[in-house]
Amino acid sequence: MPASGARVDEARLWGSLEALARIGATPQGGVRRLAFTAEDRAGRAHFIAQCRALDMRVERDAIGNLFALMSSADGDAQRASIMVGSHLDTQAPGGKYDGAYGVMCALEIARTLHAQGRSLRTPFEIVVWANEEGARFAPPMMGSGVFVERFALEDMKAQSDAFGASLGEDLATDTELLALPPRPARDVRAYFEPHIEQGPILEQQGAPIGIVVGAQAVRWLDVQIEGFATHAGPTPMPLRRDALLAAAEVALAAEVIALDNAPHGRATAGQIAVADPARNVAPGAAKLWLDLRHPDEPVLDNMIARLSETAAQIGARRRVEIAIKLIWRMEATRFDPALVNALRSAAQANGAPAIDMISGAGHDALHLALRYPAAMLFTPCEGGISHNEAENMRSDHAALACQILYDAIEPMLTGDASKAAA
Amino acid sequence: MPASGARVDEARLWGSLEALARIGATPQGGVRRLAFTAEDRAGRAHFIAQCRALDMRVERDAIGNLFALMSSADGDAQRASIMVGSHLDTQAPGGKYDGAYGVMCALEIARTLHAQGRSLRTPFEIVVWANEEGARFAPPMMGSGVFVERFALEDMKAQSDAFGASLGEDLATDTELLALPPRPARDVRAYFEPHIEQGPILEQQGAPIGIVVGAQAVRWLDVQIEGFATHAGPTPMPLRRDALLAAAEVALAAEVIALDNAPHGRATAGQIAVADPARNVAPGAAKLWLDLRHPDEPVLDNMIARLSETAAQIGARRRVEIAIKLIWRMEATRFDPALVNALRSAAQANGAPAIDMISGAGHDALHLALRYPAAMLFTPCEGGISHNEAENMRSDHAALACQILYDAIEPMLTGDASKAAA
Repeated sequence: MPASGARVDEARLWGSLEALARIGATPQGGVRRLAFTAEDRAGRAHFIAQCRALDMRVERDAIGNLFALMSSADGDAQRASIMVGSHLDTQAPGGKYDGAYGVMCALEIARTLHAQGRSLRTPFEIVVWANEEGARFAPPMMGSGVFVERFALEDMKAQSDAFGASLGEDLATDTELLALPPRPARDVRAYFEPHIEQGPILEQQGAPIGIVVGAQAVRWLDVQIEGFATHAGPTPMPLRRDALLAAAEVALAAEVIALDNAPHGRATAGQIAVADPARNVAPGAAKLWLDLRHPDEPVLDNMIARLSETAAQIGARRRVEIAIKLIWRMEATRFDPALVNALRSAAQANGAPAIDMISGAGHDALHLALRYPAAMLFTPCEGGISHNEAENMRSDHAALACQILYDAIEPMLTGDASKAAA
Repeated sequence: MPASGARVDEARLWGSLEALARIGATPQGGVRRLAFTAEDRAGRAHFIAQCRALDMRVERDAIGNLFALMSSADGDAQRASIMVGSHLDTQAPGGKYDGAYGVMCALEIARTLHAQGRSLRTPFEIVVWANEEGARFAPPMMGSGVFVERFALEDMKAQSDAFGASLGEDLATDTELLALPPRPARDVRAYFEPHIEQGPILEQQGAPIGIVVGAQAVRWLDVQIEGFATHAGPTPMPLRRDALLAAAEVALAAEVIALDNAPHGRATAGQIAVADPARNVAPGAAKLWLDLRHPDEPVLDNMIARLSETAAQIGARRRVEIAIKLIWRMEATRFDPALVNALRSAAQANGAPAIDMISGAGHDALHLALRYPAAMLFTPCEGGISHNEAENMRSDHAALACQILYDAIEPMLTGDASKAAA
């Protein structure tokens, strides 16, 4: 419990989630607010209006990240902040809570602070990261990536969507965004991101809260297979050099490797693409997308080495060329131990049986952790379902994580800055 | 040897193949004459001109099949003919010989007959079937299918290509085609189709000629798999319901079933399609195209029954729904024993070590066999490569099959009709 004993308002938090979900709502109960579209702008405008009602100053940066600042009593706009947030853009379509929960949770904390009327020694800052999903413009986690200078702004502005629209043009025509003052150079003392789990572990273990201690390392691999296209009828089976069947074997081998590295190992085949497929042609070329994850880098490296060996065996047996190319990597993340401990203590003070978790998904917090102390909280989500219109969470879970986070950061915001930093 | 001892002209036959291959030639040495396009019309016009130079009467039917008639001495246009031919349309792109060889072989036979100056008791008819490949308008073997009334003309005219152009409109604007007289009702006493093998068996066995005794039964299956899309990171492997991995297993199971039914069993997975694939999503739905073949219907039925059982086991283990739907079938074909014997005897008389073969591919002859006596000859093709610009055959092989066919049919054309039919 913090000194103030302040409680977040479950009904108010849930109501803000419901109001937000009406912007870009789909008939199937989901939400479509693709990054930089009119729906996304509407969601952000809604957020800005609510922050201004709390007298927060709303700023932006060049990639379109939004920052709502509750200033410290000294009014120093450059004083390092405690930042809480997530994103408002969605998959196409997505659910009501992915990203939205983190932002509305931050807003509920701001409202609670505002209602308390306490003056802050450290500024409180809500962030809305631009284009976290990457569903319209690659890569995902774009806004936070630019913020920590992992991605170059100009490269990002050059991205275009499937219809050829450029991100840079979308930004240049967003007059509401451009009217906001730019965020001055201001450090981040601590970044927190509350998020739905997007997996089934909390629900299965009956835990209402997950303290995220780190995130898995990720490797994206393109597996290109070159065989020889043959006619489905005349070509005897042993004479074929079938690229699709080789790809199928590699995908299944990756699954075995992930299972052998339980419980954290993951391998996902997102697609097996055949150029110019025909019903009566054994494919001569195929491309397989693989996503491999593990929280320990050396274990992940071993998984990939084993995959390469197995693929070479499959290629030799089927007389096809298999080339594996690493196209993207995300290093394993360890969140800041002091922030993780603060969350653990707050959970305990609230009597909530929290479990430590490793994030399997990417989040803006992973980018923030490259540069600033960062941590995350997970709430259960129904059936582990996410990136789906059926995504669902419980109001009491939403409030619990919000309370825990409030309790963890209130001392940082109101206490002696030098002490809180220790 | 036929009574006349006439020899087909290897150089003339090869020259006619080379001249034809210049129409729609591709830089990589292949040909692109997609059905009903300008290139296809140009190929057909070239054919018509050469037939007219032999005083043959060129006719057409409503789907655009072309018929060039060398009349019998009595001039009876309704007398049943000996028909030889294949198709001039290609894959996109295809090779120089698939289809083209059968038509040019028939033309060489007409030239040889013309040079002999013998009067025919039975008309000789060259046929060019429209749209055999089905590469632009489905289904393949369309012209012959309409000819034997397996396909309804109006259904075929309603087909459109990938750009929305309708086959019926293409036909309606083909003024050169429409200017031809329609083919009168005329029976077919025997249909022969010489063709490149499109497989590696003749080459591997060192045989210069294949006598095709029948064709495999074919089943096209759509395997629809419904699992549940899950995020590649947070979802532990054992909790997934991955449709793509299930499809991969079904495809590999089909391969095992075909191998267990060697040498004739075939199973081909043409594609595994994932709707809206993403690199970080384990696919919730996938569709697998399967093509299964065997010359014995009951064996093929057993192969499919075993596939269904295996798919059910895979579905149960992976907690996905697997529905297998038959979308097309072609019954096993047995060519006419008397015609097959005539080809065998002619091969023997030419000292050519022929082997009996089962066609794995579909050909117009399979449609003709539904209604008329029919048979086929295969020539070796280099490396078994077909439906490919690299398709190749040998000039001496082209001439040998042409000579064998000439020798087999000359007695039918010039002899007593009632005797030859016996």
